[in-house]
Amino acid sequence: MASAFGEHLRVSVYGESHGNGIGALVEGLPAGFPVDTDALMQFMQRRQGGNNALSTSRKEPDIPEFVSGVTEGRTNGFPLCITIKNTNTRSGDYSELRDKPRPSHADYPAFVKWGGMADMRGGGHFSGRLTAPVCAAGGIAKQILASKNIFVGAHIARIAGIADEAFPLQPDAALFDEIAAKAFPVISDAAGEKMQAAILDARSAGDSVGGVITCCVTGMPAGLGDPMFDGMENRLARVLFGIPAVKGVEFGDGFALADMRGSAANDPYCVDAAGNIATKTNRNGGILGGITTGMPIVFSAAIKPTPSIAAKQDTVSLSAMQPAELEIHGRHDPCITQRAVPVIEAAAALVMLDMLLSRTEDHI
Amino acid sequence: MASAFGEHLRVSVYGESHGNGIGALVEGLPAGFPVDTDALMQFMQRRQGGNNALSTSRKEPDIPEFVSGVTEGRTNGFPLCITIKNTNTRSGDYSELRDKPRPSHADYPAFVKWGGMADMRGGGHFSGRLTAPVCAAGGIAKQILASKNIFVGAHIARIAGIADEAFPLQPDAALFDEIAAKAFPVISDAAGEKMQAAILDARSAGDSVGGVITCCVTGMPAGLGDPMFDGMENRLARVLFGIPAVKGVEFGDGFALADMRGSAANDPYCVDAAGNIATKTNRNGGILGGITTGMPIVFSAAIKPTPSIAAKQDTVSLSAMQPAELEIHGRHDPCITQRAVPVIEAAAALVMLDMLLSRTEDHI
Amino acid sequence: MASAFGEHLRVSVYGESHGNGIGALVEGLPAGFPVDTDALMQFMQRRQGGNNALSTSRKEPDIPEFVSGVTEGRTNGFPLCITIKNTNTRSGDYSELRDKPRPSHADYPAFVKWGGMADMRGGGHFSGRLTAPVCAAGGIAKQILASKNIFVGAHIARIAGIADEAFPLQPDAALFDEIAAKAFPVISDAAGEKMQAAILDARSAGDSVGGVITCCVTGMPAGLGDPMFDGMENRLARVLFGIPAVKGVEFGDGFALADMRGSAANDPYCVDAAGNIATKTNRNGGILGGITTGMPIVFSAAIKPTPSIAAKQDTVSLSAMQPAELEIHGRHDPCITQRAVPVIEAAAALVMLDMLLSRTEDHI
Amino acid sequence: MASAFGEHLRVSVYGESHGNGIGALVEGLPAGFPVDTDALMQFMQRRQGGNNALSTSRKEPDIPEFVSGVTEGRTNGFPLCITIKNTNTRSGDYSELRDKPRPSHADYPAFVKWGGMADMRGGGHFSGRLTAPVCAAGGIAKQILASKNIFVGAHIARIAGIADEAFPLQPDAALFDEIAAKAFPVISDAAGEKMQAAILDARSAGDSVGGVITCCVTGMPAGLGDPMFDGMENRLARVLFGIPAVKGVEFGDGFALADMRGSAANDPYCVDAAGNIATKTNRNGGILGGITTGMPIVFSAAIKPTPSIAAKQDTVSLSAMQPAELEIHGRHDPCITQRAVPVIEAAAALVMLDMLLSRTEDHI
Repeated sequence: MASAFGEHLRVSVYGESHGNGIGALVEGLPAGFPVDTDALMQFMQRRQGGNNALSTSRKEPDIPEFVSGVTEGRTNGFPLCITIKNTNTRSGDYSELRDKPRPSHADYPAFVKWGGMADMRGGGHFSGRLTAPVCAAGGIAKQILASKNIFVGAHIARIAGIADEAFPLQPDAALFDEIAAKAFPVISDAAGEKMQAAILDARSAGDSVGGVITCCVTGMPAGLGDPMFDGMENRLARVLFGIPAVKGVEFGDGFALADMRGSAANDPYCVDAAGNIATKTNRNGGILGGITTGMPIVFSAAIKPTPSIAAKQDTVSLSAMQPAELEIHGRHDPCITQRAVPVIEAAAALVMLDMLLSRTEDHI
Repeated sequence: MASAFGEHLRVSVYGESHGNGIGALVEGLPAGFPVDTDALMQFMQRRQGGNNALSTSRKEPDIPEFVSGVTEGRTNGFPLCITIKNTNTRSGDYSELRDKPRPSHADYPAFVKWGGMADMRGGGHFSGRLTAPVCAAGGIAKQILASKNIFVGAHIARIAGIADEAFPLQPDAALFDEIAAKAFPVISDAAGEKMQAAILDARSAGDSVGGVITCCVTGMPAGLGDPMFDGMENRLARVLFGIPAVKGVEFGDGFALADMRGSAANDPYCVDAAGNIATKTNRNGGILGGITTGMPIVFSAAIKPTPSIAAKQDTVSLSAMQPAELEIHGRHDPCITQRAVPVIEAAAALVMLDMLLSRTEDHI
Repeated sequence: MASAFGEHLRVSVYGESHGNGIGALVEGLPAGFPVDTDALMQFMQRRQGGNNALSTSRKEPDIPEFVSGVTEGRTNGFPLCITIKNTNTRSGDYSELRDKPRPSHADYPAFVKWGGMADMRGGGHFSGRLTAPVCAAGGIAKQILASKNIFVGAHIARIAGIADEAFPLQPDAALFDEIAAKAFPVISDAAGEKMQAAILDARSAGDSVGGVITCCVTGMPAGLGDPMFDGMENRLARVLFGIPAVKGVEFGDGFALADMRGSAANDPYCVDAAGNIATKTNRNGGILGGITTGMPIVFSAAIKPTPSIAAKQDTVSLSAMQPAELEIHGRHDPCITQRAVPVIEAAAALVMLDMLLSRTEDHI
Repeated sequence: MASAFGEHLRVSVYGESHGNGIGALVEGLPAGFPVDTDALMQFMQRRQGGNNALSTSRKEPDIPEFVSGVTEGRTNGFPLCITIKNTNTRSGDYSELRDKPRPSHADYPAFVKWGGMADMRGGGHFSGRLTAPVCAAGGIAKQILASKNIFVGAHIARIAGIADEAFPLQPDAALFDEIAAKAFPVISDAAGEKMQAAILDARSAGDSVGGVITCCVTGMPAGLGDPMFDGMENRLARVLFGIPAVKGVEFGDGFALADMRGSAANDPYCVDAAGNIATKTNRNGGILGGITTGMPIVFSAAIKPTPSIAAKQDTVSLSAMQPAELEIHGRHDPCITQRAVPVIEAAAALVMLDMLLSRTEDHI
């Protein structure tokens, strides 16, 4: 299935960085939902980053066209095909890269898999650009979720060892909006400034940094998810590792739980003010046995540093099967973590909506 | 699909802790493979732990019966149904647990999902016992992989903050065998002894600990995996989060990459002694863009501490919708990390074999 | 996926004719349904045929054991593993068949596919015996459907050119029960007697006959099914062609529609006595565009004559790659159509229940 | 999954008759195949029918644009998105149809399913127009198959009770080409003229006719297909019932087998001139137990008469829940069978290629 995921809500991503266009086919959306295209464009804009020193200079206007699936502004029940044209492709300097795979990019494994026939200009189908259609689809999912009082928000939890504040136990939608409105999506602006300084530091050294993004979903009912291999964690993880540069995924306190004792890691139950069952802490990230507990769903993703750096790197010549050196030209994002924040939200929104649409009659 | 995974090699797990039996249905195994049942029993034995203070006292002999799929000791091309009988089930003291969900177990979300109709005695289908059929299926996969010179090994990388030595860049099968032969599967026995002391400490405090397991697969060819959502990382992560208590998964250096600079995180290419393309380091865990590079595949899983602890815990009464206290009786593993090591290997072996069997004509 | 089907209700069939056992793994059943095992045994008995001249003499008692998924007589929400032991296997005379494929059985293609390693004794996994677990799973589905006022019935529509009466436009459950209670499941006993005579005729000539089975499902709501490739027709057809000997499937008037004019083939709408929308005729079998109309779902399956016949047949020796002759010994059903009737019902019931469980939020 | 099918080669169809465009997303094509766009256009032209009295007057030029997946004329290994713009949509007279479902169209079940929110103008996603992207995808599949000496051909086997000649036991590619070159794709032109006269007869009566199409695939190796529910028959049937108006599917002699005796229906084996195993007859259509035998794969599909006819028809008003009359205006195909011939070929080609790409290591 490769570039697609989802059970009832199926999202298939297509396109290459330097081809005619990119896009997504979204199957299974309920009919009759009025898509707010302005809000969608605004959401997609967050992925493109600002016109600042933190981001690359390639700035294509990512305008999603609905080829199908929307009639008079509303979803019509049929597959929604979104296309985003590629307008700003320059592939002049690609010949060297065909022979010399860039370290820690997909170039070499793609070369082996497709026998050199894949279109890897600009990263091809592996390019970060392919996250634009994920945001287009996920932006619609976010709107549908919001109409059901389910909200998705994320922030940069860490860059270069500098940590942001953590989400509160029960974040509200206003906090998510506040973070989303920032050019640099953190909770604590003080921490954010230190992170940005670290990014600029790396940039001036011709280097790059990674980061950790934490995402939270509120309003999902308890009892969603299937046991063992189709739980909420399994589904989210499968999709999150499809976002370029993600190398780790954890739920709740994740790897930190591994160093705790059970008495500290367990989330005791309580009855909340509204008379509902809740947990006093949420170290398990709102998921037990793969099934939602009704607490906010919390997870984090580790983003590796941008592999395109200015320094000369060791590689090989595929034609000569000899060691070679490679210098990657052009401007590159010294950090993509801030731009990945809405992508993580989009992925989460799509998984949540799929989960809701896949709900069935679990008991008589 | 819930309790099943795999594309060409499909593994479906069934059973409840206190029902008649547990097992797995394995579809897609190539015909004609001679299953070494002694080796399989030995592998499954690793999951059961020794008769020592580190493990629970329930010791059922997990004997896999082949209901179908094997004829005269060889796979016959048809679905392989493995059944393991439950012989040692005591469910006398379950009534309290029906009403009071154990913190950080699946009890409460399962109660909501199945309206109280799920058989949750002993954890039901969520019990760690369900990893026995995963090991039965995975043990066969390991044998098939070994016949193709592909080897899978794992060790406890960390318990209670105590770290084991790391795998070398290119571990050999002998090292995997050596670790597997140990009652406590670590590389450094000195580190292992400290870990065991920490487990016994927690045990005497009526508490529990978690840990991190690192797994390595050698011999997988480059070019395997599909882009975006069906890469090696996506498939492994989806299955690993199906193992009870896993709360985090990372590939290569994973979360540590998030704090590195690109110049330190990138894996430069080289030509190895045999004339093949390799990388000098393997911080990406043998996977780029979801596709194998030909380097060992390396990943880690975070195991949360056993949620069953001796201390009195806060919970709620589901019938009264009131706060309640819960004391969990009986003996429980103070740490399951050491028993989860072969389970992680089994899961990895199944994903690897599925990947190999799903290989198609990628280019003309 | 091979021997499995279903979206939310997933049925995986396993076993070989001469192995230890056969069975089915059923995932996705709602929890809490009380299984009527007596009714289930009675339903499965219909597949085994009577002790008469129409059926083979091999009469194993097909007793389904629930390894998992049922607790105290009720489904428990977890995968239901059904096993039926094989007790009456005689494989003494199989050696000749290994080398000489029986015409119109799966022997030869199975030999090519699995390189001679498949266990084809008695037909192996292709044996008609594998329809027993389909009936076990489908019998439970029928019970759940009946609790929702959805009923499934079938009859022999034709054998050896002799046609039964057709179902009325709106058959009721009593008619289904009446047919099901007959040893030879037809509507018109007069037609049935002629059919039985034709079967015995073929039998005394050492030959066999096929037939056509028509099945009807009442009570399914309108609006179920997905467009294009996942409609009701697509799903039913996929499963029906999995029943051994089925070589044709048609909906409503099917192939007869191809010879009608539109004015005769169209089903005009009306408002029925209860004020609901209905059609005056049902030549489209209750399905338009793959989606249910609310009218009874009607389809037919063509069953080819039993390929095992007494006459000497031309085949080849696989070892010698030379023409050879084959005489198939033992007793064989001169007609399996009557025994296939409950199998068709079982398959239909499973698809219907899956369809109901897969229903999602189609519109806002 | 709805509008998508395929295991390794996945085809997802999108679009509505009166929306912006229609198309297909094709995942899993091998990289490096040079697409012959002229041949593709010629193949797609067959679906559009000639400018004659047999077909409707709406004649949009169906020009497939490759948004992704093709670089410099070759497949590039990544998902291939094909878009065909809708240029000739007139939806002025749709308001009456919104309220009065056309008999034997999908209007009413679609209304129920999507609560009136589906875009059903011109049939929406159920329109025969959606077979254009199937032909675009299938046309490419045909080219890839031809490069492997696998050929797909079809003819009109019957219209209005008038039968064409049958395919010979082993048709060659030249015969397929000859039929494909005809405006009215039959083997016997004499039969074809009678059929056309019957179509024009129906047309002058304001009525329509259906027909039967028989398709044949040569060159597929033996041993392809999976047991029970994923065999060649299951996969083909599932896709064929996705083509609008198909109401029956049979393999080999299909329903006619149901009236034969086993001695007449069995296909005896022989060794052919080239020393390969073959069958002397092919009444099973090259498939046994769902697996290919190496003989040509032969199947037929029943096409119901075009439901849009000139005569006044009984329907209901959905707003008033009252009986109503409907007159369908505009010009409509009096028969779509001839235009469906390349669609059937396209569907078959896609299933064949998928089968080849899904081949795995069946035995050690």
